[in-house]
Amino acid sequence: MNGVEVDSDEVQTIYERLNREAEEAGYHLNPDVEFAKDLIRGLLTNEKRYGYGACPCRLAAGVKEEDLDIICPCDYRDADLDEHSACYCALYVTEVVLKGEKRIGSIPERRPPLEERKRAKPKPSAATISSLPLPVWRCKVCGYLCAREGPPEVCPICRAKKDRFERFI
Amino acid sequence: MNGVEVDSDEVQTIYERLNREAEEAGYHLNPDVEFAKDLIRGLLTNEKRYGYGACPCRLAAGVKEEDLDIICPCDYRDADLDEHSACYCALYVTEVVLKGEKRIGSIPERRPPLEERKRAKPKPSAATISSLPLPVWRCKVCGYLCAREGPPEVCPICRAKKDRFERFI
Amino acid sequence: MNGVEVDSDEVQTIYERLNREAEEAGYHLNPDVEFAKDLIRGLLTNEKRYGYGACPCRLAAGVKEEDLDIICPCDYRDADLDEHSACYCALYVTEVVLKGEKRIGSIPERRPPLEERKRAKPKPSAATISSLPLPVWRCKVCGYLCAREGPPEVCPICRAKKDRFERFI
Repeated sequence: MNGVEVDSDEVQTIYERLNREAEEAGYHLNPDVEFAKDLIRGLLTNEKRYGYGACPCRLAAGVKEEDLDIICPCDYRDADLDEHSACYCALYVTEVVLKGEKRIGSIPERRPPLEERKRAKPKPSAATISSLPLPVWRCKVCGYLCAREGPPEVCPICRAKKDRFERFI
Repeated sequence: MNGVEVDSDEVQTIYERLNREAEEAGYHLNPDVEFAKDLIRGLLTNEKRYGYGACPCRLAAGVKEEDLDIICPCDYRDADLDEHSACYCALYVTEVVLKGEKRIGSIPERRPPLEERKRAKPKPSAATISSLPLPVWRCKVCGYLCAREGPPEVCPICRAKKDRFERFI
Repeated sequence: MNGVEVDSDEVQTIYERLNREAEEAGYHLNPDVEFAKDLIRGLLTNEKRYGYGACPCRLAAGVKEEDLDIICPCDYRDADLDEHSACYCALYVTEVVLKGEKRIGSIPERRPPLEERKRAKPKPSAATISSLPLPVWRCKVCGYLCAREGPPEVCPICRAKKDRFERFI
């Protein structure tokens, strides 16, 4: 017993909110609702324990500054969705998983080890656009811009799919 | 008979989804609901026939790579909304049309002919911001950025109108 | 009597729309519903009087070009939310105020005086990214980009909080 209690009503409320927000932004929760709710229960437990919703599938340090990158949705979600069709926990999945066209396999940990994260220095600000740390993608339909390794699954503004994005910078 | 059947329930479901998504992003479907639904029926027919929702008012090649620019919403929608208050099909319209303050006229085809589209090379990446292929617009209210010929009708994030945008790059 | 009448149904309708749009974009209306509705009544009065929804807490010039910056939401809202947890009118508030964890104090006028606004020249377009007029912030979760003095309270796309943003340019 860790003294942290999360009741089912709370889980249901947060499930509904996260599901609605995910759909609005072009993301999807795992279609296995009970599985998703178990993860959300873990998330809420962490929120009560630490004061922030650290990833339920990772060991949190309990110090917010050190856990910022794994507050759900974590900094690694979108890269994992892109490569594995699911985030590390499989709370978030892509459309092919949602539709049952692909099964989720095991997802390797993308988060760098502690030493490496500590070494990471703030990037010096780029002097020219060719030295920016990430590419900028543009939705050819609505002009939405985002900076990520690759374009998102769908445009969060106009719902155009990934193949309608072009590299802008 | 092309063997493709689309039933009314499907049309209704997609109509509702597209209408909700359009409104959330600051776009509007044609207020003539039956007209809009006829277009959506064409869109769904194309989706079943080709595997993607090619524009119902244009002749699709049937090869996705060649039709990417006319998957609805097409790459030309926003420029047509800006210039003609409606997209080529008039499935999407601007607020003045929605309110009945302007009637839609005939909308010329903006899509370049096949030869020209084939000639179009991927743009070389810009070395400086002054050589980017499109201007970047900024919403003065919330800071939203997008790269398009001109600013959108309303900011998809905070609903500020076009005249609240400024050129940023 | 100024001859402008706004009925309660109209106020209720606009209250519901603004509240929904605010929540969708990561903003919040003042939780004192009657207070918020009084402001919305003022906003609607201005909309009927001038043809645009000038801020109900400021004296409008009545000429749209001169009042563009104070059409609600005004150009100063987000900076005031950041510094004072509420906009000048307190129609919009941040999460700490919503939750009752902070009380709103008096909010100084951030809008420059008329002379200064008139002097403000359109900025010359920047030749390099280091001379852009505002920093560009990136959401580390989804890659959303915006140009503002500081990052927004939450990412309007993926709901990640302010501390998940990094300076991108």
